[in-house]
Amino acid sequence: MTYNIAILGASGYTGAELIRLIAGHSAMKIAALGANSKAGQSIAQVFPHLRHLDLPQLLQIEEIDFANIDLCFCALPHKTSQEVIAALPATLKIVDLSADFRLRDPAEYKKWYGNDHAAVAQQKEAVYGLTEFYRKEISAARLVAGTGCNAATGQFILRPLITAGVIDLDEIILDMKCAVSGAGRSLKENLLHAELSEGYHAYSIGGTHRHLGEFDQEFSALAGRPVRVQFTPHLIPANRGILATTYVKGDAQAIHATLVQAYADEPFIIVLPFGEAPSTRHIRGSNFCHIGVVGDRTEGRALVIGALDNLTKGSSGQALQNANLMLDIEETEGLMMAPLFP
Amino acid sequence: MTYNIAILGASGYTGAELIRLIAGHSAMKIAALGANSKAGQSIAQVFPHLRHLDLPQLLQIEEIDFANIDLCFCALPHKTSQEVIAALPATLKIVDLSADFRLRDPAEYKKWYGNDHAAVAQQKEAVYGLTEFYRKEISAARLVAGTGCNAATGQFILRPLITAGVIDLDEIILDMKCAVSGAGRSLKENLLHAELSEGYHAYSIGGTHRHLGEFDQEFSALAGRPVRVQFTPHLIPANRGILATTYVKGDAQAIHATLVQAYADEPFIIVLPFGEAPSTRHIRGSNFCHIGVVGDRTEGRALVIGALDNLTKGSSGQALQNANLMLDIEETEGLMMAPLFP
Amino acid sequence: MTYNIAILGASGYTGAELIRLIAGHSAMKIAALGANSKAGQSIAQVFPHLRHLDLPQLLQIEEIDFANIDLCFCALPHKTSQEVIAALPATLKIVDLSADFRLRDPAEYKKWYGNDHAAVAQQKEAVYGLTEFYRKEISAARLVAGTGCNAATGQFILRPLITAGVIDLDEIILDMKCAVSGAGRSLKENLLHAELSEGYHAYSIGGTHRHLGEFDQEFSALAGRPVRVQFTPHLIPANRGILATTYVKGDAQAIHATLVQAYADEPFIIVLPFGEAPSTRHIRGSNFCHIGVVGDRTEGRALVIGALDNLTKGSSGQALQNANLMLDIEETEGLMMAPLFP
Amino acid sequence: MTYNIAILGASGYTGAELIRLIAGHSAMKIAALGANSKAGQSIAQVFPHLRHLDLPQLLQIEEIDFANIDLCFCALPHKTSQEVIAALPATLKIVDLSADFRLRDPAEYKKWYGNDHAAVAQQKEAVYGLTEFYRKEISAARLVAGTGCNAATGQFILRPLITAGVIDLDEIILDMKCAVSGAGRSLKENLLHAELSEGYHAYSIGGTHRHLGEFDQEFSALAGRPVRVQFTPHLIPANRGILATTYVKGDAQAIHATLVQAYADEPFIIVLPFGEAPSTRHIRGSNFCHIGVVGDRTEGRALVIGALDNLTKGSSGQALQNANLMLDIEETEGLMMAPLFP
Repeated sequence: MTYNIAILGASGYTGAELIRLIAGHSAMKIAALGANSKAGQSIAQVFPHLRHLDLPQLLQIEEIDFANIDLCFCALPHKTSQEVIAALPATLKIVDLSADFRLRDPAEYKKWYGNDHAAVAQQKEAVYGLTEFYRKEISAARLVAGTGCNAATGQFILRPLITAGVIDLDEIILDMKCAVSGAGRSLKENLLHAELSEGYHAYSIGGTHRHLGEFDQEFSALAGRPVRVQFTPHLIPANRGILATTYVKGDAQAIHATLVQAYADEPFIIVLPFGEAPSTRHIRGSNFCHIGVVGDRTEGRALVIGALDNLTKGSSGQALQNANLMLDIEETEGLMMAPLFP
Repeated sequence: MTYNIAILGASGYTGAELIRLIAGHSAMKIAALGANSKAGQSIAQVFPHLRHLDLPQLLQIEEIDFANIDLCFCALPHKTSQEVIAALPATLKIVDLSADFRLRDPAEYKKWYGNDHAAVAQQKEAVYGLTEFYRKEISAARLVAGTGCNAATGQFILRPLITAGVIDLDEIILDMKCAVSGAGRSLKENLLHAELSEGYHAYSIGGTHRHLGEFDQEFSALAGRPVRVQFTPHLIPANRGILATTYVKGDAQAIHATLVQAYADEPFIIVLPFGEAPSTRHIRGSNFCHIGVVGDRTEGRALVIGALDNLTKGSSGQALQNANLMLDIEETEGLMMAPLFP
Repeated sequence: MTYNIAILGASGYTGAELIRLIAGHSAMKIAALGANSKAGQSIAQVFPHLRHLDLPQLLQIEEIDFANIDLCFCALPHKTSQEVIAALPATLKIVDLSADFRLRDPAEYKKWYGNDHAAVAQQKEAVYGLTEFYRKEISAARLVAGTGCNAATGQFILRPLITAGVIDLDEIILDMKCAVSGAGRSLKENLLHAELSEGYHAYSIGGTHRHLGEFDQEFSALAGRPVRVQFTPHLIPANRGILATTYVKGDAQAIHATLVQAYADEPFIIVLPFGEAPSTRHIRGSNFCHIGVVGDRTEGRALVIGALDNLTKGSSGQALQNANLMLDIEETEGLMMAPLFP
Repeated sequence: MTYNIAILGASGYTGAELIRLIAGHSAMKIAALGANSKAGQSIAQVFPHLRHLDLPQLLQIEEIDFANIDLCFCALPHKTSQEVIAALPATLKIVDLSADFRLRDPAEYKKWYGNDHAAVAQQKEAVYGLTEFYRKEISAARLVAGTGCNAATGQFILRPLITAGVIDLDEIILDMKCAVSGAGRSLKENLLHAELSEGYHAYSIGGTHRHLGEFDQEFSALAGRPVRVQFTPHLIPANRGILATTYVKGDAQAIHATLVQAYADEPFIIVLPFGEAPSTRHIRGSNFCHIGVVGDRTEGRALVIGALDNLTKGSSGQALQNANLMLDIEETEGLMMAPLFP
């Protein structure tokens, strides 16, 4: 059986990554591509690297006939997404890659994103899309909210440790190094090659990054009490990858054992041998997440370092993994490609 | 049916690329990996990006039992390759990625590589591995000699034009821009990140690059008279990609029409609409080759620009395409993945 | 004596480069900075790397009092520059870095830039700013028109060869590799880090780049008959540098000797020993231009390769060199800093 | 007055950086260059970017006549440096850039570097070269030990805070992002462009980096009790720069005020307005260090972020600053050049 797929927001990086992945998927066919600002163009004009594919022209979202669509990916900007999704057929299966349906509490949503939510009904219905921890809910969901890419990375590292109670909940620092594709294809001065390529810096400092909303929601729920991590992202001159250096208090060996056990059966989460550190270059372009653990010289302190590709496991790969579950396809289908190195 | 595959030279970049591609191939299984200098190590130690794969340990080549191997890729350094291949079972199907069997004339070989050939019998037997132009010979071959990555790029551009007689054979300039993975994983000062990353330069200038041996052999044979192109490679701070800007004399429209027709049925060679120029970023990590044609402001002069990934279409992808032919597998199997962008 | 300097267009890359250079100049003081779009901001906001300097706030150009300004650099966009300069005091010494006054013939200007010139009087008065070849005129000039960065590179290579008659004037190909800062600080999709950093491509192909106007004007004047070079620029993932690979017909040794002699007394133009090739990384951030010559394997053909920093010798360094001449300061003052490597 | 300078280890990156800086110094002349492995070569062969300078040929160290040398920079590898310095004239002023004389306690030296010290007498005599904090001792010193580049960065951030008692001494985390030139010009696989350029990773994890020896020595002496910071360096695909994200417990405003006051009169250490974060691209190629402070959302926690160029302020610029003091030259001479951006 082949499912008909629509992608809204096909002219952005997560849209392109979805197309790349689905092009190698045995049970999906791209039936419609929506991209309002570039409607009327062919994919060869918008993404010349996809020109070998036989794909429909980009359309205005209103022009798309959703009657024969089995599942729709929304890779639209935040805020736009909730408006578009509110207007889609109420029975359409949707995987949303925006931030719009990640936070369950409308007040938290407003706190981090500044506006009232325009699709509260859908917000209630949405399932949080961190596949490895919400598999059952996702399989049964109509609307899945893809996680933030940083939020995914931090949760792969910390969820099992919080659940197992092997770290101090009040002393968690996430120092993340993020590649630039996470900022999307938007025209901003600080994203120009000449501005970015030979330096690096912290941004959204002091606990202001919106993905903290996801950390707060998920970690507090897991712990049964408020958890407030410190999180500082840094923009690195590379195109893909998130490296999360996590400073925690706890026994390093216990932490490692906990992660090894938690991910023993997971196809995409690989815990490295104790003492080894991952690199973003070793997961580039793939759906894998590598996690390493090492003890600090000061007893009782440990580093847990995670690496994943923000466009794949951090967004579009995760989205496809969820879509597979929602359509009852093998979860790993279309996602087992090896990383691209060098 | 699944074929057992051996890869010799598995710790280099073309070896890693072969593993990446074969990991997604439906009819091949990696049964043995040879890498003398790193024998005894696991692939996770040598190439951590491949650690998710279930692969045999690296072996000394002498340790490998070739009895149950259906096809062997040799991704060994030049000169080593001919010695190793001379000692392999005489019936073993081999795709060689080194320069050792590309030149048919032992004198030409010595001229460009400096030493007498150590496997003259095999040299006679070898078929030149430019798939699109030697398909029939490759299908029937026991030993196929992979082309140089620059040599492949230049030939995709020029072979149809020489055959069709639409360009001046004495006025051909190939100005190539080459990414650094083409130089392999060798420890040389000029390949260090700090040396290379913020500048670019020409190398092997003045007609001294060894791939000229292939151009001379192939173009002269096609034309039925000596053809001596000018070829200058430049090292660019990027990891993958060759961009060949070719300056020719001839009618740009006739040149474009010739290429369009020549590659109309080819799955991997894409001729762009007249006037468009390709970019290496649009073929990165894929087996595609993009070719663009434009007329210069001076009539009778044209630019033909080709782009391919030196590790994929320029070597390991080509090698797998040839292996598919030799094993009577669909030629495109394992090779249709989309480029990685951004 | 210290001269008061104004810089208009201080928020662009050539503006920043002027400030960097003048900060180390013993006889110039920056008295006014104009930048309409960022007027009211401090330099620390616009260019944090210059925050250690004691500089005036950015102003609207209209706010600047030119009464006490000894020389004004205009680093404004093309077309804006001619309008602004037409309105400046008629006795003010000006070095313009835009394209507006490079072409002497209004018809040629319109052909390449599309609009009628808005300051024809000033256009007549302007002296072409290629220092090494217009020194006397520049010393006496009120208005100097900085050259295009590609135009400078190509002329350093070709002017002595055309003058000496050692190359075939009808067979000149300039294949240039250009870093991205040459495109300025403008918000264009193809200048984003994620778009540009891992690939390279030709642009303005087929003889459409505007710097051809300068080549045509200058080379034809030198030769006393029309000269039409072929010129193809390529965008390379690096921030600074132009590498011009020039294919000519002529005797390589004669070409080398001509260049050695032409530049024997020049402080900034260095001709390498015969057979050596320059690299952009070796002139980065400096006012030097390196030129190398090598013979092709086909007799009578040669490569001449030049490298300079587009922001320094290609624009702001050239501008300062010219300003030194106009103010009767030592020509090399403020310009002898060594390149930054690695 | 002009001082005669010798540089030993002139073929490495810190050697090249010393030459770059001294080339612009008004009171120093390079009289001898030592580089054992490349003795006999010219600087143009070893560092083509310095070919415009009139410099002596590289010599074996034994060939150098130190009789007329006023000050000698040693930019040799660790361990070699102590052997060479032990054999130099006992009255020669020396600035050493290696790690050999940074640790005062021979036991600590052995703990971090593994071998017994071969020049214990000189080790006793050496003054620790962190200019801003050892000015008086450096001015009077014969032998100054340049600091580690990471060690300098961390100390600029933390010394005033430890002295002022505004942070918790047991809760200090230094997460550093380091450019690759800090690893020197050595031939290691992980420093190749193809290996490094598109990814990033932590190294020397778990409190094993040797610069911890300096942190321990200096911070414990300042605090009057043992201080053991956590320090994790990360290798970033860039050539120059260290960014140190420091997580501390204390009042952010008090921390900022302390740093502002401590560095009010320092020419090279710039404390940014509260809440701003520095970037390595804004200090590149310069002797400046930028420091920013921001409070975390959790009260009582703060981030202090420092940025400097490892080759300039982190090693060769610091060395020149110290040499200026030792020779009674203006401390900032030769060091006020603006950063190179873009």
